[in-house]
Amino acid sequence: MTEVELKSDERVDYLVREEVKIIQSREVFSFGMDAILLARFPRVPKHGKIVDLCAGNGVVGLFSSLQTEAEIIEIELQERLADMAMRSIVLNNLETRIQVINDDLKNALQHIAPSTTDLIFCNPPYFKVGKKNNKNKNQYLRLARHESTATLIDIVAISRQLLKPGGHFALVYRPERFFELMDVLRQAHLAPKRMRLVYSKINATANLLLVDAIKDGAENGEIFLPPLIVYGEDGEYTKEISEIYYGEKGF
Amino acid sequence: MTEVELKSDERVDYLVREEVKIIQSREVFSFGMDAILLARFPRVPKHGKIVDLCAGNGVVGLFSSLQTEAEIIEIELQERLADMAMRSIVLNNLETRIQVINDDLKNALQHIAPSTTDLIFCNPPYFKVGKKNNKNKNQYLRLARHESTATLIDIVAISRQLLKPGGHFALVYRPERFFELMDVLRQAHLAPKRMRLVYSKINATANLLLVDAIKDGAENGEIFLPPLIVYGEDGEYTKEISEIYYGEKGF
Repeated sequence: MTEVELKSDERVDYLVREEVKIIQSREVFSFGMDAILLARFPRVPKHGKIVDLCAGNGVVGLFSSLQTEAEIIEIELQERLADMAMRSIVLNNLETRIQVINDDLKNALQHIAPSTTDLIFCNPPYFKVGKKNNKNKNQYLRLARHESTATLIDIVAISRQLLKPGGHFALVYRPERFFELMDVLRQAHLAPKRMRLVYSKINATANLLLVDAIKDGAENGEIFLPPLIVYGEDGEYTKEISEIYYGEKGF
Repeated sequence: MTEVELKSDERVDYLVREEVKIIQSREVFSFGMDAILLARFPRVPKHGKIVDLCAGNGVVGLFSSLQTEAEIIEIELQERLADMAMRSIVLNNLETRIQVINDDLKNALQHIAPSTTDLIFCNPPYFKVGKKNNKNKNQYLRLARHESTATLIDIVAISRQLLKPGGHFALVYRPERFFELMDVLRQAHLAPKRMRLVYSKINATANLLLVDAIKDGAENGEIFLPPLIVYGEDGEYTKEISEIYYGEKGF
């Protein structure tokens, strides 16, 4: 195994039948289920260019690397997380296929040529700044979870510029901001085509939303994919969630 | 049992543990599952006024009458269907609580005072006129299924006028026209609040959409209710669908 230095708060987790190793830290950043579901949601192109605009510790890029030989670019604003992502890439011997850019996603065009990207992933900050009680005192988590630095409009605008015509923008979001998200996407002519709602249990309201939007796609024929249920009646992960976590296939 | 004359093509079906009797005709009109799901979807007010704008043979009003003492007004353009609806009301001894108006829904304000309705039901024509291959040669079915006489915009405009502020508009529609529907509702300030997607099986894409929109409601906090699955893995109705069909409770 490639030697990579771990900081005191960090650990290495093994994913997908131990094929993927990822550096995490409970204090700084650990990926959530939303990132895993996002990574498995879109059809990943076999070649070309994939960008993760909100990379965190790089879990989406690492997961995707199993399904493609495309170039993968991870953009992460926070130096501490970008550094974790970079070391995880080394740990997996993926330096030739995945790179990390430690910059604000709004500067993405300084690093990536416009209209060259086949697929963009984004697991953006969900919560609007200014609401009380949902700001996290941990600065790493705060930046990852709140729109302090990039709003939904910023993210969608830069995505439009990066994508090829017909390129896909795959996003995970909160269903209670459904219309706001859809308005921003459609105004940027990123046509929402495939939507999948995630429910913790079959009798719960949806708590996550996966969207696949196509740059300059036609505005009709939207599809709501089968519901994705996380826990079965026995309280265990459903078969599909287990396969997403531990298998190699997409949805 | 009250005596009501049946035409040669008609039959009486018994619903909800035989508490509701309804006149149907295979040749003219039989209600579908969409109507039943719609009838059971919104919270039905105990008193006040309920209008079904697209009543057909009146199944939604009959179902709702079990849950409320409100006045129920069924509007149906087709004389043949309005007549069936009226005879079913007599059959159920509900003449004092349900009335049928045989007119174009666009004339609803000639019969109902504006801003007086608590809940509107609508199971509208789903298919746009002009598309080949989906026009039905049977005139009754054609009028019921295609936007020959009333477009979505007409329906939403009249609903806005009929509803009290804060009144509810409950609609069943096709998910592949999701954005079109939502745009029309939001432009009329009928805020879509509760949405429920219906899937024939748990691993199928959604094939029906139930929406509960509120007149002048705030534009946020939309909720996607638990998925409604029609058939279980055994090919039989799920428990929830059985309860909707044969029980008395709402969702």
